[in-house]
Amino acid sequence: MNKNIHNFIGCGCDYDKSDIVLFGAPFDGTTSFRPGTRFAPSAIRNDSFGIETYSPYQDLDLSEINVCDIGDLELPYGNTEKVLNIIGNTTNEILNAGKTPVMIGGEHLITLGSVRAVINKYPNLHIIHFDAHTDLRDEYLGEKLSHSTVMRRVWEISGDGKIYQFGIRSGEKHEFEFAENHTVMHKFNLDGFEEAVKKLSGKPVYFSLDLDILDPSIFSGTGTPEAGGISFLELLDAVLQLRKLNVIACDVNELSPVYDQSGVSTAVACKIIREILLSINQNIQSF
Amino acid sequence: MNKNIHNFIGCGCDYDKSDIVLFGAPFDGTTSFRPGTRFAPSAIRNDSFGIETYSPYQDLDLSEINVCDIGDLELPYGNTEKVLNIIGNTTNEILNAGKTPVMIGGEHLITLGSVRAVINKYPNLHIIHFDAHTDLRDEYLGEKLSHSTVMRRVWEISGDGKIYQFGIRSGEKHEFEFAENHTVMHKFNLDGFEEAVKKLSGKPVYFSLDLDILDPSIFSGTGTPEAGGISFLELLDAVLQLRKLNVIACDVNELSPVYDQSGVSTAVACKIIREILLSINQNIQSF
Amino acid sequence: MNKNIHNFIGCGCDYDKSDIVLFGAPFDGTTSFRPGTRFAPSAIRNDSFGIETYSPYQDLDLSEINVCDIGDLELPYGNTEKVLNIIGNTTNEILNAGKTPVMIGGEHLITLGSVRAVINKYPNLHIIHFDAHTDLRDEYLGEKLSHSTVMRRVWEISGDGKIYQFGIRSGEKHEFEFAENHTVMHKFNLDGFEEAVKKLSGKPVYFSLDLDILDPSIFSGTGTPEAGGISFLELLDAVLQLRKLNVIACDVNELSPVYDQSGVSTAVACKIIREILLSINQNIQSF
Amino acid sequence: MNKNIHNFIGCGCDYDKSDIVLFGAPFDGTTSFRPGTRFAPSAIRNDSFGIETYSPYQDLDLSEINVCDIGDLELPYGNTEKVLNIIGNTTNEILNAGKTPVMIGGEHLITLGSVRAVINKYPNLHIIHFDAHTDLRDEYLGEKLSHSTVMRRVWEISGDGKIYQFGIRSGEKHEFEFAENHTVMHKFNLDGFEEAVKKLSGKPVYFSLDLDILDPSIFSGTGTPEAGGISFLELLDAVLQLRKLNVIACDVNELSPVYDQSGVSTAVACKIIREILLSINQNIQSF
Amino acid sequence: MNKNIHNFIGCGCDYDKSDIVLFGAPFDGTTSFRPGTRFAPSAIRNDSFGIETYSPYQDLDLSEINVCDIGDLELPYGNTEKVLNIIGNTTNEILNAGKTPVMIGGEHLITLGSVRAVINKYPNLHIIHFDAHTDLRDEYLGEKLSHSTVMRRVWEISGDGKIYQFGIRSGEKHEFEFAENHTVMHKFNLDGFEEAVKKLSGKPVYFSLDLDILDPSIFSGTGTPEAGGISFLELLDAVLQLRKLNVIACDVNELSPVYDQSGVSTAVACKIIREILLSINQNIQSF
Amino acid sequence: MNKNIHNFIGCGCDYDKSDIVLFGAPFDGTTSFRPGTRFAPSAIRNDSFGIETYSPYQDLDLSEINVCDIGDLELPYGNTEKVLNIIGNTTNEILNAGKTPVMIGGEHLITLGSVRAVINKYPNLHIIHFDAHTDLRDEYLGEKLSHSTVMRRVWEISGDGKIYQFGIRSGEKHEFEFAENHTVMHKFNLDGFEEAVKKLSGKPVYFSLDLDILDPSIFSGTGTPEAGGISFLELLDAVLQLRKLNVIACDVNELSPVYDQSGVSTAVACKIIREILLSINQNIQSF
Repeated sequence: MNKNIHNFIGCGCDYDKSDIVLFGAPFDGTTSFRPGTRFAPSAIRNDSFGIETYSPYQDLDLSEINVCDIGDLELPYGNTEKVLNIIGNTTNEILNAGKTPVMIGGEHLITLGSVRAVINKYPNLHIIHFDAHTDLRDEYLGEKLSHSTVMRRVWEISGDGKIYQFGIRSGEKHEFEFAENHTVMHKFNLDGFEEAVKKLSGKPVYFSLDLDILDPSIFSGTGTPEAGGISFLELLDAVLQLRKLNVIACDVNELSPVYDQSGVSTAVACKIIREILLSINQNIQSF
Repeated sequence: MNKNIHNFIGCGCDYDKSDIVLFGAPFDGTTSFRPGTRFAPSAIRNDSFGIETYSPYQDLDLSEINVCDIGDLELPYGNTEKVLNIIGNTTNEILNAGKTPVMIGGEHLITLGSVRAVINKYPNLHIIHFDAHTDLRDEYLGEKLSHSTVMRRVWEISGDGKIYQFGIRSGEKHEFEFAENHTVMHKFNLDGFEEAVKKLSGKPVYFSLDLDILDPSIFSGTGTPEAGGISFLELLDAVLQLRKLNVIACDVNELSPVYDQSGVSTAVACKIIREILLSINQNIQSF
Repeated sequence: MNKNIHNFIGCGCDYDKSDIVLFGAPFDGTTSFRPGTRFAPSAIRNDSFGIETYSPYQDLDLSEINVCDIGDLELPYGNTEKVLNIIGNTTNEILNAGKTPVMIGGEHLITLGSVRAVINKYPNLHIIHFDAHTDLRDEYLGEKLSHSTVMRRVWEISGDGKIYQFGIRSGEKHEFEFAENHTVMHKFNLDGFEEAVKKLSGKPVYFSLDLDILDPSIFSGTGTPEAGGISFLELLDAVLQLRKLNVIACDVNELSPVYDQSGVSTAVACKIIREILLSINQNIQSF
Repeated sequence: MNKNIHNFIGCGCDYDKSDIVLFGAPFDGTTSFRPGTRFAPSAIRNDSFGIETYSPYQDLDLSEINVCDIGDLELPYGNTEKVLNIIGNTTNEILNAGKTPVMIGGEHLITLGSVRAVINKYPNLHIIHFDAHTDLRDEYLGEKLSHSTVMRRVWEISGDGKIYQFGIRSGEKHEFEFAENHTVMHKFNLDGFEEAVKKLSGKPVYFSLDLDILDPSIFSGTGTPEAGGISFLELLDAVLQLRKLNVIACDVNELSPVYDQSGVSTAVACKIIREILLSINQNIQSF
Repeated sequence: MNKNIHNFIGCGCDYDKSDIVLFGAPFDGTTSFRPGTRFAPSAIRNDSFGIETYSPYQDLDLSEINVCDIGDLELPYGNTEKVLNIIGNTTNEILNAGKTPVMIGGEHLITLGSVRAVINKYPNLHIIHFDAHTDLRDEYLGEKLSHSTVMRRVWEISGDGKIYQFGIRSGEKHEFEFAENHTVMHKFNLDGFEEAVKKLSGKPVYFSLDLDILDPSIFSGTGTPEAGGISFLELLDAVLQLRKLNVIACDVNELSPVYDQSGVSTAVACKIIREILLSINQNIQSF
Repeated sequence: MNKNIHNFIGCGCDYDKSDIVLFGAPFDGTTSFRPGTRFAPSAIRNDSFGIETYSPYQDLDLSEINVCDIGDLELPYGNTEKVLNIIGNTTNEILNAGKTPVMIGGEHLITLGSVRAVINKYPNLHIIHFDAHTDLRDEYLGEKLSHSTVMRRVWEISGDGKIYQFGIRSGEKHEFEFAENHTVMHKFNLDGFEEAVKKLSGKPVYFSLDLDILDPSIFSGTGTPEAGGISFLELLDAVLQLRKLNVIACDVNELSPVYDQSGVSTAVACKIIREILLSINQNIQSF
């Protein structure tokens, strides 16, 4: 008899043999409105057993690819910089082993920890940022490190024109103005995504998916729901296009299961994660 | 003063005078992930008083047709075969009285009990199966009788080419392969439904509606929500087309009110049941 | 140190300097099915801090316009006529001060209190009524004053052809028949709204928004959810057209936060109220 | 096959043969804080099937006594006086038939409707009032008819010294002062109940049980929970003493199931109602 | 980097070195009223990290004893007999390895599977049964295997006078009569427990804890809550007395987390399991 | 017409005239298990209108004393030290104005910010600490500032023998050992409180109430519920004894309304705050 292994469905590959490494970053320490994303990685593992390993969209099966779920990082609350360091170190270790890290948040700030590690290895990194919110403030309530400032911090290390933003429909006026000069922002929906994929072909890409890009009709379980978002099928289509890109790392964040009594949001997250894993595995094999 | 009658709104016709007989099958004994569909028939009766008897879509009124709601069957938990027998006997009795049975689940396995009875009388029975899931496994955790195997069991008694599946977007790879050879499967949505209706014209039809065919944005109250489903208006359109068919019996299943804190899913079920009753009553009058 | 002011985000203007006055009417005393709209104004103020003051749709900011939130009226339960009088008096006082009242319900009956006051000053008042329900009954359970009769009561004082109804998809047969002769009803959606706006140009308009016109997929938090409604973006488009109209007063009603565990419905209400405020402020400046 | 009868467990006796008549008064129209008691009678019937008909406390069984559950009264919202009349008429009719009415609320104001009818026949009526709240205001927000004023209204028709209050731990200062001169008030708990039972022996008694007399630890499902109440076993002991009294009528009110996600409060209400029925049936047989 | 181990806090001992083996039996297939106990083992593991490994009541720490959590059994729904066999086989294997099995339910019927295995080895087995319900029916809705019949089935293999029941306050009349002749029943509370412990000293004991013996004020998360139960401190005291007994195996069942929105019931279960593990480990060391 | 003031019931006194100043510290940034206490101050203000201003326990009324509610502090997430500074500065300002600060948390760490300010003025400060948890760790996940370390940090500035702990029933072994040498700890309940009050008579006292000292049966709405706590009436009795002490400042913390669907926990907090305000006002008048 063995100990109880708890992983995302179909992701029971041993670490050494794995191509993709899944890990949770259960942190919501800078969330200003409604916390709870810390519970997402665990909820996602639990409810992943309500979906199948097979995707009828891609005709691929998680059981045929090599993903290792190493569980959740242990992150201290109250010390944001240390949290980012732990995330960065883990990302780094996975990259050094020649594997692709897929991080499940947690709030959006966790992206900074991971991008810092990736950009060290890939200075020409481009970031695809799916989100309802700009996340481009310089500071929030006096703080530089916040879910509201994460893309501003990323921009500081990536530089102009490297961040491709889609679905954005909420922010302060000056954030939208900042975007005009420094990022490639597509407001409201995914218009322009196909062109972006072509443009980014062959370049190292980080994919950061804030699930609140989805309309709250299909994704209610998040801290700051913003009506007017994209549909699940639109997001799915975009995820399938990741096959054409050289995705070095990615993250899926901002699920807050406590605001999702029905479990639909968690089920959506599970399904999208399955599709992301299957999709980026295709480019892992080809790059 | 009288005893307290509890029925679906507008379905207070006496049994003898009724054309349609509504009954609940509050069973979820094989549900593997999240149980709760046992509570659906009662919740549907309660919340049916939040809708009107009049349909502006069909310009028809439940008060003008003859439906008798006989309440819920008493079903034992832990003995699946006996449950199916009780359902079968009730269906049989209603058919023998020259009435149309409409069963409210419960989980999807209940369909097998009802189909067994109907197919006895109508060996050429065709089944229209609306669902997010294939339900075509041969067994599940070693069991032949399961919500995941129900259409496989139906296929065993109906034969090849009799089951028309729509909206399917989840299953194991081998189930999709099975469907290619034995059922008529339309993946993801209702494409092809109009043609199917034409083809089935005049033939005896069983309509089995697993409400999780709906996108979870409009129907979150179900055990295994699957994003990427059809809209309410798409389902409504299909239901209106039932008028053109010879519907011998039907069922509506897989509402799980406990995962529907807002009551929207139950309201959706009520509205669809009203439209089904009005729609199939038209063909009852014409056949 | 000061007392604790609690207002809708960005609506902290002093009453004297304000152009628009926001107030809550926390009444649900005639709600027959599921009460709870009394909690809406308070929930909306709380959760308004989850949205931004800036609208990327209109490129306008609440901080640039003059809105005073005077809080909730104190309304007695059990005496409907007195409730309507208090609402009427408040509306009157705001109009007399040359300001535009925006009322947050509460159930739909509150509209009657406000319309009574407005129509006194603007006898040629036209009403734009967004709703899932006809609200045209003559009485409900013997009562003349009810959420189900509110538009019939409004019709009695406005006269034929003054009420423009959109999105209606539920009611009794005789209500739809009444509408054919006395109101301008557009069933199911917003078809015909653009023409209506043109026709109403220059005329005094009251805008009454029952949020259940929205599909329950995006707005589940309401007493009697009706599937088959309009999308958020469709509602937003209509709200933006209010700029072209001379909106004398308006109300937003029927949010019931208790049936909205995720908070999405309240967030939707907040966002729509922001857009309404920004939109009608444009015509206030021009008229 | 029969229509669906929906009654409290074990209360399926025909009206004509019954000794006790149970009915629901689903009214919460004057509730000022958190509505929802309208849902209590239906929830109680549903969940009564989670308890047994047999009481190990009394060694009696509901199946051995004659109770008829006639369902819920149809009560209009928005017209409080009419609601009280309907309740009064029903109570009257039951009394005239020589039966004992047991009313399930709804909010506490319903008691007034019932007491008015009973006191007509029994001018010397004494009222046992179990509650957390005084309910002795003269008016509330200008209204005479309110859940907060119900015992004041009862006092107006019963006179001084007829109302025995127990468990009271919340009210305005002047209400407690009023009680000193006009009612027999026992604050905080049931101290003095045994003596009261002795004193009331042989006199006609109305028992009005506001379930919020219970500590919210065991009864959270109520509009205005007040910590510091009595335990379930204390309430049960008191109910068993009703056997010694000539209970003409009684009511159980203020369960609000929507604030009782676990269902414990509804289960408590069911169990207490079973014990009340068995207990007062004893004195019915003896008087 | 390792795979993600998910166990009860402080129970990470390797199987071979363990003295106690914890496992989950997530089965609720015969639950007739409100299902959901299948989710208990997983919820308990999750929330066990909200308690400490150290008990100030016993001055002992889980980190000092050897418990291996082997996770949940995979149990089919719809085939009750097979479920009991799987449980029996696991129990048997643990016993054969010289370890003490502690099973977390799941519904109460699971006890039968375990007792069958234990009684094979210990024919003189005595059962301590803590519960609100008698569980002594001969059949339920025609079924022999049910949560309502489990102690009757146990009695069939243990014989008269072997089952010591405590806390019982709900059942049918004939069950209480059965108990008088065949079991040792203590109604309502734990009176007589101390004597029972003395009497059972040195004999092989199975301890079956249906958590609904607790008053629902402290344990609301269960299918059929019964007011009038024992307090947490009373249960704790009893658990501490297990040190004096030769406990061969035990189970803790009937937590239904879905009815426990606050998480208190799960926290109670975690704390009691900690105390049971520490307590029975004492007698393991001494026997 | 005025802006909307939002305060705790009966606490509308102007700041300048006030004796007691109430403020919220909506911070839960170091909460490791389940966050949500940030919502407590706002929930408490809302639900305070469900209780009365009059206390039948003290025969005193909030309307007769002078309390000013200044609302919530604006606290940044992610920077714990800054949060404590803001709290400290506010406390200091209130003390300098000769008033008594009453802080509503928020998590327990906020106590440190307040104690730092108070101890500056009153170096001989004694702390009465009501809690289920020791809160005496030296660090938690490597952090010095945490809800789990707060009393250790307080001890560092207050010194040995100054912290009186009551109700403690959870912690690590070494924390209990630390308490033996450095604090005055009373485990499990309030035994010894009366003696402590006598001993502390005349000395400056800080009262820190972690509401989870209450048994979760009456207070479920908290992050880490611990069964076996004190009853509401026991806590109330202790609070009434505060009259005998020179309470310089106090706080009430760890209500997490999101885990309290019924609202009982918030109602309990409101009632206890009313009693604290009335009680400490007595000693303010006398000292």
